[in-house]
Amino acid sequence: MNLEKLFKPNSMAITGISKKNPLSAGRIIFVKNEFEMNVKVYGIHPAGGELEGIKLYPKLDKLPEIPDLLVIAIKAEDTLQYVQECADLHIPAAIIIGGGFAEVGNEGLKRQEKLEKIAFDNDIAILGPNCIGVYSPPLLDTIFMPTERITRPPKGSVALISQSGGVLVDQFFHKFNQINIGVSTAVSIGNRAVVDESMLLEYFSKKDENTSNIAFYLEGFKQGKARKFLELAKESEDMVITYFGGITELGKTATKSHTASLSGNARILSAALKQYLIIQPRSENELLTFLKLFDILSHKKKPFGGNEVLYGRVAVLSISGGHGVICADMLKKYGLSPVQFTDKEQQEMKELTNPVAREIASFNNPIDLTGSVQDEDIERVLEYLSQIQRIECVILLILPYAPSISFQIGRRISNVITNYKKPVVCFIPYITKYGLIIEALELGNIPVFHSIKEAVQAVSAMKNRTRINNLKKDNIFWEDR
Amino acid sequence: MNLEKLFKPNSMAITGISKKNPLSAGRIIFVKNEFEMNVKVYGIHPAGGELEGIKLYPKLDKLPEIPDLLVIAIKAEDTLQYVQECADLHIPAAIIIGGGFAEVGNEGLKRQEKLEKIAFDNDIAILGPNCIGVYSPPLLDTIFMPTERITRPPKGSVALISQSGGVLVDQFFHKFNQINIGVSTAVSIGNRAVVDESMLLEYFSKKDENTSNIAFYLEGFKQGKARKFLELAKESEDMVITYFGGITELGKTATKSHTASLSGNARILSAALKQYLIIQPRSENELLTFLKLFDILSHKKKPFGGNEVLYGRVAVLSISGGHGVICADMLKKYGLSPVQFTDKEQQEMKELTNPVAREIASFNNPIDLTGSVQDEDIERVLEYLSQIQRIECVILLILPYAPSISFQIGRRISNVITNYKKPVVCFIPYITKYGLIIEALELGNIPVFHSIKEAVQAVSAMKNRTRINNLKKDNIFWEDR
Repeated sequence: MNLEKLFKPNSMAITGISKKNPLSAGRIIFVKNEFEMNVKVYGIHPAGGELEGIKLYPKLDKLPEIPDLLVIAIKAEDTLQYVQECADLHIPAAIIIGGGFAEVGNEGLKRQEKLEKIAFDNDIAILGPNCIGVYSPPLLDTIFMPTERITRPPKGSVALISQSGGVLVDQFFHKFNQINIGVSTAVSIGNRAVVDESMLLEYFSKKDENTSNIAFYLEGFKQGKARKFLELAKESEDMVITYFGGITELGKTATKSHTASLSGNARILSAALKQYLIIQPRSENELLTFLKLFDILSHKKKPFGGNEVLYGRVAVLSISGGHGVICADMLKKYGLSPVQFTDKEQQEMKELTNPVAREIASFNNPIDLTGSVQDEDIERVLEYLSQIQRIECVILLILPYAPSISFQIGRRISNVITNYKKPVVCFIPYITKYGLIIEALELGNIPVFHSIKEAVQAVSAMKNRTRINNLKKDNIFWEDR
Repeated sequence: MNLEKLFKPNSMAITGISKKNPLSAGRIIFVKNEFEMNVKVYGIHPAGGELEGIKLYPKLDKLPEIPDLLVIAIKAEDTLQYVQECADLHIPAAIIIGGGFAEVGNEGLKRQEKLEKIAFDNDIAILGPNCIGVYSPPLLDTIFMPTERITRPPKGSVALISQSGGVLVDQFFHKFNQINIGVSTAVSIGNRAVVDESMLLEYFSKKDENTSNIAFYLEGFKQGKARKFLELAKESEDMVITYFGGITELGKTATKSHTASLSGNARILSAALKQYLIIQPRSENELLTFLKLFDILSHKKKPFGGNEVLYGRVAVLSISGGHGVICADMLKKYGLSPVQFTDKEQQEMKELTNPVAREIASFNNPIDLTGSVQDEDIERVLEYLSQIQRIECVILLILPYAPSISFQIGRRISNVITNYKKPVVCFIPYITKYGLIIEALELGNIPVFHSIKEAVQAVSAMKNRTRINNLKKDNIFWEDR
């Protein structure tokens, strides 16, 4: 089954456009794509006429061309006749927005089975039913929430696939936008009657060159397709990340899922994911941190050249003792270890520091340059650390509260990193007035996080990414760490 | 030792005001308090003259009055002479900003011992050395970071005590400001040579009526004072919350702390805190969530009247299935359990819901009203849940992306809560455009969080708060949960 027309159609028709209710799903999708996106749009309405000055067509076979994609946003009872029309007219792809299928009991289940039969018999790539569809910028956006209500993530390397439309729009879109993670395509799979997570994993791995990282929110694998998914993930050159909901007893009840799936047992699931080189974040926050880091490392502009984190040996550079302590507390949990500095190294770093700060600073790892720090101190010590071979990565805790740190500090740090290509992950508080500093770093494609924990998680993700890439390259079946 | 003059002085003198360097600590503190705060300020400079048009005095004994508090922001070698002057002139309190004492080795240690002797012999409440002092709004602020660089939390019920100035300003001030947690007084204790965490716990518990919650960032207890701290906490009518840094081996190395303190073993520490009814959050985020909730519950305007969460029995009301599932996954970990709805209850809730949503909605717990939800549905179902006795708290997951949720929804929810006084914790995405909704809830003093996890943590904190208050009331020594 070819999924391309779902994401890259030349033209798209939409049914279910209400002339009375401006908040009907079909109408929102019609208006949004007509005025905001690049795909050619045709609106279907039994009475014809027009909406917002655009002509509507009474039937699919009256369109000037056969569209590549049909979006069906009408009630369940009337949906199948449109699916049949797709078959008759050879429309290769469809998205079914509405619910009323397998999720509502027997009658719906029968309806969904009929739908599946038409789709598979006629090779129609159908997404849904009971989904919010596709966001494929700048081409199309079938998400039936009004544009002014949602936030859209920037364009980037992450393909997003979610079993919950709410999670896609909120946990992903909103937070991607907030912390600047880029999306190639986003897909809501709903009941996944036809197109499922394995087919999407295969498509984004093999067919979509804009995608380098593939992230899933799932509440279990589609029945009988778990192994397929795992094997595809292991073969994929992309990073595959899965976040599972419904893995506890209470959560499982909430999914109402009766599939005898792998996710029935959280431990078996985790072991399988690990074995097949799929990343499973421990929390939603960790998921976002991983994706942000992977998106940065997938950019054409590689901030650290070919330098990678293999063993997790870090130096922590702080200007607040407490921040250094909190960071050190987290290292072990995330598989990282601080390098030890020799007396000579400590003495040399001390000499690079201004006379006031050096007397009260600490040059053990984590280094604490204190609130008396100046820009040059950070710059010189970071240069010094960049030249120490056994340090794989520097965690830089920047607190621009200190009076003598200037707003040039972002540019200065960025220059050091560009020169030495040593992996560096920065922590800076997320405060509007520090936007200048954050922006200077992000322009250099340097990872910036807004909590100490996220900075530590990011370095751990770099280490994990190196490991997975090496295993995939060597085709070694990974047994245990 | 009376600490009152540290936090509520009528007048304050400052030494260490540089006429050349506008970023010197003493000068920043002088200017900040003169122009922004309410305390009467006197600047000391050996040469007299003036700064920013304000008269400077050459010596302490030339001031028009004996100040209540002296801020000493000069180098270590010259500090003791000022401490001696405090003794001679009977100045009851001092804050020593500079480092160069116990933290820098032998010479500094001797200096600190001399300082301690003068302080205890003369009953001077000395804060520091090596600290950033006190923020006691609207009276004084001795934090030597320029006002335009830091963010200040609103006025509220939380007394904050931190062993790290950086942690105080960043992890606390910035985040309190961001998520709207109010502070009564904030204190940086530095080397805690004289005034230590136990004395502060006693002061804020017994003497400060603006404080209802006392939070600490510590890297260990002061030697020999652990038991004192624990006992004071158990007697306190306030909630006592401690967040420890340096509890892992790596973190401990970072603190360079050689004190044989309780925190030497993280498990022993946790057990002791639990036994003495001190709350120990698992993460920095949890700390913030707890404090936000406690601050809300300490307001005069009690959003839930006398209703409390005792057993942790919750109903989850969502409009996104995925969010409900993620929430359900977290309940058990946080000691909460979902109530079961009877068929009759489910049917009754269904009838309260609009005809489109009711067909696809799910009325199990977690309830999923779906993206077809309207304001009235949320309002009616919340009213219905508020009347079910066995539900102690509703977790309301509001996603205003859905087209038919209006921006009145905050006001509507707030009204229901005001009428029924059922404890409700809301999740709403932190998006500028939803500020209207968030504000309407916060005006009603209703707890709003911006991640599902935080909402769950908050309910768990309500349960824990009830338990601790009951134990303190009944004077029962709590053994285990």
